[in-house]
Amino acid sequence: MTDEIPTRESVATFRPVAEGMEGHIDVYHPVLDHGFVAVKDYMGDDLSILRMARMSYGRGTKATTDDRALLRYLLRHQHTSPFEGCIIKLHVKLPIFVMRQWVRHRTASLNEYSARYSVMPDEFYTPEPAQLAVQSSDNKQGRGAGLDAEQAAQVLRLLQDDARHAFTSYHSLLNADQDGRPLDEDREGIARELARIGLPLSTYTQMYWQINLHNLMHFLRLRADRHAQWEIRIYAETILAIMADWVPLTFEAFQDYQLGAARFSRMDVALVKAMLAGQATLADADRFGLTKREARELGEVLGLV
Amino acid sequence: MTDEIPTRESVATFRPVAEGMEGHIDVYHPVLDHGFVAVKDYMGDDLSILRMARMSYGRGTKATTDDRALLRYLLRHQHTSPFEGCIIKLHVKLPIFVMRQWVRHRTASLNEYSARYSVMPDEFYTPEPAQLAVQSSDNKQGRGAGLDAEQAAQVLRLLQDDARHAFTSYHSLLNADQDGRPLDEDREGIARELARIGLPLSTYTQMYWQINLHNLMHFLRLRADRHAQWEIRIYAETILAIMADWVPLTFEAFQDYQLGAARFSRMDVALVKAMLAGQATLADADRFGLTKREARELGEVLGLV
Amino acid sequence: MTDEIPTRESVATFRPVAEGMEGHIDVYHPVLDHGFVAVKDYMGDDLSILRMARMSYGRGTKATTDDRALLRYLLRHQHTSPFEGCIIKLHVKLPIFVMRQWVRHRTASLNEYSARYSVMPDEFYTPEPAQLAVQSSDNKQGRGAGLDAEQAAQVLRLLQDDARHAFTSYHSLLNADQDGRPLDEDREGIARELARIGLPLSTYTQMYWQINLHNLMHFLRLRADRHAQWEIRIYAETILAIMADWVPLTFEAFQDYQLGAARFSRMDVALVKAMLAGQATLADADRFGLTKREARELGEVLGLV
Amino acid sequence: MTDEIPTRESVATFRPVAEGMEGHIDVYHPVLDHGFVAVKDYMGDDLSILRMARMSYGRGTKATTDDRALLRYLLRHQHTSPFEGCIIKLHVKLPIFVMRQWVRHRTASLNEYSARYSVMPDEFYTPEPAQLAVQSSDNKQGRGAGLDAEQAAQVLRLLQDDARHAFTSYHSLLNADQDGRPLDEDREGIARELARIGLPLSTYTQMYWQINLHNLMHFLRLRADRHAQWEIRIYAETILAIMADWVPLTFEAFQDYQLGAARFSRMDVALVKAMLAGQATLADADRFGLTKREARELGEVLGLV
Repeated sequence: MTDEIPTRESVATFRPVAEGMEGHIDVYHPVLDHGFVAVKDYMGDDLSILRMARMSYGRGTKATTDDRALLRYLLRHQHTSPFEGCIIKLHVKLPIFVMRQWVRHRTASLNEYSARYSVMPDEFYTPEPAQLAVQSSDNKQGRGAGLDAEQAAQVLRLLQDDARHAFTSYHSLLNADQDGRPLDEDREGIARELARIGLPLSTYTQMYWQINLHNLMHFLRLRADRHAQWEIRIYAETILAIMADWVPLTFEAFQDYQLGAARFSRMDVALVKAMLAGQATLADADRFGLTKREARELGEVLGLV
Repeated sequence: MTDEIPTRESVATFRPVAEGMEGHIDVYHPVLDHGFVAVKDYMGDDLSILRMARMSYGRGTKATTDDRALLRYLLRHQHTSPFEGCIIKLHVKLPIFVMRQWVRHRTASLNEYSARYSVMPDEFYTPEPAQLAVQSSDNKQGRGAGLDAEQAAQVLRLLQDDARHAFTSYHSLLNADQDGRPLDEDREGIARELARIGLPLSTYTQMYWQINLHNLMHFLRLRADRHAQWEIRIYAETILAIMADWVPLTFEAFQDYQLGAARFSRMDVALVKAMLAGQATLADADRFGLTKREARELGEVLGLV
Repeated sequence: MTDEIPTRESVATFRPVAEGMEGHIDVYHPVLDHGFVAVKDYMGDDLSILRMARMSYGRGTKATTDDRALLRYLLRHQHTSPFEGCIIKLHVKLPIFVMRQWVRHRTASLNEYSARYSVMPDEFYTPEPAQLAVQSSDNKQGRGAGLDAEQAAQVLRLLQDDARHAFTSYHSLLNADQDGRPLDEDREGIARELARIGLPLSTYTQMYWQINLHNLMHFLRLRADRHAQWEIRIYAETILAIMADWVPLTFEAFQDYQLGAARFSRMDVALVKAMLAGQATLADADRFGLTKREARELGEVLGLV
Repeated sequence: MTDEIPTRESVATFRPVAEGMEGHIDVYHPVLDHGFVAVKDYMGDDLSILRMARMSYGRGTKATTDDRALLRYLLRHQHTSPFEGCIIKLHVKLPIFVMRQWVRHRTASLNEYSARYSVMPDEFYTPEPAQLAVQSSDNKQGRGAGLDAEQAAQVLRLLQDDARHAFTSYHSLLNADQDGRPLDEDREGIARELARIGLPLSTYTQMYWQINLHNLMHFLRLRADRHAQWEIRIYAETILAIMADWVPLTFEAFQDYQLGAARFSRMDVALVKAMLAGQATLADADRFGLTKREARELGEVLGLV
């Protein structure tokens, strides 16, 4: 499916270069059983963010000589436009059900492999036994306890048998093997765009995906979160590690002011004020207008439960 | 899957009202075997487009009293922003492989049914025999000749058996029937977000989809086109008919200046000029820099082949 | 500059109607000395947000019968797409320097009065004496103490004389009075697109501006904030009041979870935890990694300074 | 206003490099009397567009070995997403009235110099005498005949005197000279955000502006067009020349399929068909549904008038 052989030959440029990112170019990081993430190109670094911000503030920031402090200030105050000046272009291979979550982030550019033009390779996602779990009873969109070994084996057998069966039907409909050779010389296959409709959502596809750093951080906040489905989270975590090498100052600030931060509602703030004044405890949450769930989550953030 | 019962009770409003559109509100137009398109809400009409344009031009358009002429002028000159002032909100039920093409239009708002929260109903798309066709040999993304009755029956049996099989596995993994009742009281089902990965791309999903008229026309140009996959084109054609009732003047101009229009390249224009001057024929296309394909397509537009 | 006479005639519609918003249609709310904000159209209400969310969650939300609770849950968890289903279209008249801040919000549709097509009316913004203030010394983008009456009078005289002078030159260059009649029948005026380049940034312009509720809340968070320039804040506050009538449940949640909320950094959270455990006070902020400014701002949020 | 000294030191990179673009990095191309355009960074080249397209088409494009042919095919068929993979970041200095047209292109990232943080330098645009012209009588948004030398001198004197006067008032209000030194030690200046409201629309500002190649081509189609105001067209033409060095194959295709192309309406096509068949001439345009203006414009495209 990948035509290109990574070349890894360096060339001279007058552009800003992010040292830590150069080592990632054309390196394919494996994700899940058949997926990957690879950096194909990027633009900008920590310094180019600062350069854009300093142009805006003009003489007004002459005094601010500390790069790290200015960068943290920008992220803390959500002065987001300088972060749009950094771009990353990734080559990603992923199951279609993950792709369907991914494309909900509309502020990105993407090109996906077309199953109308070309045959889909016989590759589908099979979870590792450790990822199999029953439906969570308290989290409507999540997983609960894991399966025992026997149950897990049964589930995997079912998923794999069905997927293999679907690919067999696919080739039969196309009348073509994986390399496009006819299975039966005497008949024609049906159109690729029709034959693929029976393939499972676990089928792997691939795309080039490009996004600016501001929107990437938004993606990572949502998809590296524990509420995200595990199969997309593992992609987000791979990209987080790449981001740490690309823009290390921004990454540190991102952890401090966004990933590790908490939003306190008007009611949360009122309750914390009262708690600090010794006039209330978490048990009074109801009186301050918090729901039970809000009180529990505030307790978790404050390490009180 | 649809919680709501269309109420069809009218209420008074001071807003602009598009007479022809009111009859579409909450009317479910069937598409394919289990799909639909329904208008849930809209904003604006032909007159509100004109009102926005006239505010921009100020006293400069005092003279232009003819609504139709101004509207056609706007569309012809691609003064697109007044068309952004009209919005349509649709409820659409469609197969996942169609949805995957649909979401490539990023300038829309959408909310999709979540297979993490809820069980997917046992509904999948089966093409009508008339839609089955072999892979086109000259159009890499299209269909060629139709299948004969026997072949078609075989294909449909294969697609249906596989899809039914996938849904049986889905319920077995979930340990739940369509109404959520356990199949086996003594075991738990696996998480919905995992169980669905084996479902086929032909499975129906649904969404609320909202887009402004400018971006809708772009969507319709691409998806009501003969190069679009038939299964999305049939949705686009349903929406075209709704648009004709909503903004009749815009619709007429859209047909004249966009759907029925042709773009002539620099080389096309040069050749047509020479043809009109009696100095060339289509056979000279090569000399004017047109490729064979371009010459053939120009010939088709001009009714010469 | 406004061609239209508000008609205020109601018509029947099958669409969702927001009762509190109907009274705003075509009502011109004055802002600043010559500006205004008027609702021209809207789509959606609190219930239509819930309807979109419930379609996504499907059977998963059957249990949630309480509209207000679900709406607050959506806003608290930043499930933003259902809020995109509400749209507001405003007619706004505002000084150009305010417009220049306004257009930085790119996720909106706008049509502005064109000074290439039409003559700009002789209207410019003059601050009220109470708004005049010296440059703030600690806030690089803000105002400090007010001016005394005599200073204020001098400033206003200078601003007004210069603006009037610029408009006189404008008419002289155009060779036209406000109604477009030539000042001197024997000469032609220069092109409008050139004559306007000497007009001051305080000149009033006008636009149709349309935005969805999700992006409107983002606009209001930034522009109704005390760090925004007063002249745009006063527009944002007018729109806030309209929003309260349009989507009252969303407005209440917006105040609780966004306007009145505070974001606590990783370091803020760590310090508050220590304070609640009696192991630190705000004076220890430095030890937890907060800058002086961050410590002061945390103190303000918690009512400790 | 520009803090940075272009460094022009090359560094090694593994990224794609556009040879012809490297020579533009940090080179300031003068535009108008005080403006400029400079490339600060870029991403991608002709080959990276092809790489994205080939990934989408997969094995389907194995046969297409000719880069130029594939690139032209993409642009001709408006397969736009591969062009989004190229980005350009520019530093631009421009009059505010040009900036106000420029920001209407919302699909770009920008950071502008802030007149709230910093003092605006005393720089304003004065047209060259050759650019001065009377209002066009047939084109409501354009210029007609030029002015004679005496009239031109009068106009320029008026524009310059007024602009200088406005800057004198600005400094008086700020109580600061261009370098921020107080004019009168005994008083404070008013806030920068207020003092600037009397500056003319001809005042120069600056920005970092970043856009992908697909959206850049849209910008250039509109702004390098003869209907655009001359002062923005001259910026667009400077960027066109940069684009030619950056992506030469795309540039050639852009000229052939977009800049030099013409859109023929349904009626235009019908008339041309009849003309080629010897059954009509341009004089019959009315019979085919063309307006007088449309007939004239078609005649211009076809070299018949």
